[in-house]
Amino acid sequence: MFIRESLALRFSETKVEILDQTLLPHQERWVDVTDPLEMEKAIISLKVRGAPLIGVAASLCLGVFCLSEQNKEQRNLWANALLSSRPTAVNLIHHMNELIQMIQKNESGTAIFNQAIRFFDFDQKNCDLISDFGFEEMKAFSNILTHCNTGGLATAGVGTALGVIKKLAQNNKETFVYVDETRPLLQGGRLTTWELIQAKVKFKLICDNMAGFLMKQGKVDAVVVGADRITSNGDSANKIGSYSLAVLCHFHKIPFYIAAPMTTVDSSLISGEEIPIEQRNPKEVMGFVSPLNEVIWAPLTAQVYNPAFDWVPSHLITAWITDRAVYKLKDVELGCFK
Amino acid sequence: MFIRESLALRFSETKVEILDQTLLPHQERWVDVTDPLEMEKAIISLKVRGAPLIGVAASLCLGVFCLSEQNKEQRNLWANALLSSRPTAVNLIHHMNELIQMIQKNESGTAIFNQAIRFFDFDQKNCDLISDFGFEEMKAFSNILTHCNTGGLATAGVGTALGVIKKLAQNNKETFVYVDETRPLLQGGRLTTWELIQAKVKFKLICDNMAGFLMKQGKVDAVVVGADRITSNGDSANKIGSYSLAVLCHFHKIPFYIAAPMTTVDSSLISGEEIPIEQRNPKEVMGFVSPLNEVIWAPLTAQVYNPAFDWVPSHLITAWITDRAVYKLKDVELGCFK
Repeated sequence: MFIRESLALRFSETKVEILDQTLLPHQERWVDVTDPLEMEKAIISLKVRGAPLIGVAASLCLGVFCLSEQNKEQRNLWANALLSSRPTAVNLIHHMNELIQMIQKNESGTAIFNQAIRFFDFDQKNCDLISDFGFEEMKAFSNILTHCNTGGLATAGVGTALGVIKKLAQNNKETFVYVDETRPLLQGGRLTTWELIQAKVKFKLICDNMAGFLMKQGKVDAVVVGADRITSNGDSANKIGSYSLAVLCHFHKIPFYIAAPMTTVDSSLISGEEIPIEQRNPKEVMGFVSPLNEVIWAPLTAQVYNPAFDWVPSHLITAWITDRAVYKLKDVELGCFK
Repeated sequence: MFIRESLALRFSETKVEILDQTLLPHQERWVDVTDPLEMEKAIISLKVRGAPLIGVAASLCLGVFCLSEQNKEQRNLWANALLSSRPTAVNLIHHMNELIQMIQKNESGTAIFNQAIRFFDFDQKNCDLISDFGFEEMKAFSNILTHCNTGGLATAGVGTALGVIKKLAQNNKETFVYVDETRPLLQGGRLTTWELIQAKVKFKLICDNMAGFLMKQGKVDAVVVGADRITSNGDSANKIGSYSLAVLCHFHKIPFYIAAPMTTVDSSLISGEEIPIEQRNPKEVMGFVSPLNEVIWAPLTAQVYNPAFDWVPSHLITAWITDRAVYKLKDVELGCFK
């Protein structure tokens, strides 16, 4: 029935379905996305999330609906709505810009749809390459700490950082994962835990503020996280909290890795200073907000600071594990991201 | 009616009442503690919390009930239950040991009760001294970050770290506070916010993992936190997350202060390595647990690591703001905590 299926995305020529990630881990509900503007909402509300996955999901949604919609204005409206749904994620921008060019050239719905399928396959293949390269780079490490969710729920494949971790665990019984819960949206506590249980990987869930004390006790051999955008100098934007982790690794002389496909690279930006940082709803910090539960534990009049992302300067990154190679700072200086 | 009243503790010769801190900020409910074993439960369940406050509250509870109970065995049973209710907090241990000696000497209930009142007054006076010393030390700083709750809800007086902050704000309109929410129990998000709103101090609530990125942007001038135990070499145990903050300060060359009464010093311990670290209920990390709400967002089978405290090595501490003086590392090396 479906042309492709991944952990959180499946599609045919008539529809795209996403696993509603806001309901995990307690409910596994697939949602039929009936309109590209519904996909836009699903991205904004984090039903579908993860920089690679939203790029692929948005493309496929646009592709499916372009199969039956020839009107250029309508197609453009959809594409631009999807393009602006998540300002920090560059994969989405890359993919949408490519499809917008096809729309401008009046290409057929089939051509656009097929291009979107290529994005899906490309992301899946990239995940495999990243996990292979990452395994070679990190196979000496047993105790790995990660942040947010970068697995099959964030990509069309096995994942980026979590793909590497799953490959390590498949090949080494000693692999043990510390999962940062990743406030405020708790992608670690809700999603990475769910994915690691499915993959039968041993882990412990921690609060984000416990990572430093674990490192001090020698319980962390390496940290690997994903990226939402990598600038030409190697600075890497990722979920808020990644910067603190990188500083803690630096202090404790623990390797800090970024695992991301080359589609995450935005060579138009010179450094992290230029990356737009999305500010999200204060309620997320004032409590826990999900479709199943909403608890506000802070005073309702509290002021809040809620950046969705931060960025790690390249000098704090041990290596970038990509689908092309494992790059070190010297490779970055030689222009691998330019 | 009451002999003394503070923000979260009040007592007469017949009863001790505590403000149930697990219900804040949404409900302000005073609880009449009808038995020292009820106080033990209130300490374990964090209805009453903060190292100085639990020492004073436990002492007063024991004092009130010793007024009408002469039996040494019963008094000892109560004292030992209270003594062991919170293993990391040294004020409680100091106070209980002193009262246990009085019980051993068959001293009168009145003598024990009066001694407990002296602990209350002493803590209140200490808070004033700490806030005075801290104000002098920190008056050049406008943007202060703090962790957990160390105010009038954690002491019998204005507080330790938060007492300093409130005094800074009273004297400088520019004072701005970043409040770490302090997972897992959210004392920052629930209690410090409530206390700062009452004190009309400007603040923003953040998730713990945002502190580093704020520092990177130059938005934090200094960090001040409390302590649950200070060893003779200056290592300072405090709420989990304090260690990470201290490392982040070190990296960003931002002053990191401990504010605590000298009763927090445990000169019997040489270093932080000897401080027992309490492991708490996994459910706290798997979700948000309070008497008003319980939300579990992690998979129910997830394994968890949940230390209540960590400790900051003395070399990462700029100064210790105490009721006696502001001590620097050289003072510690000269034996101020011995």
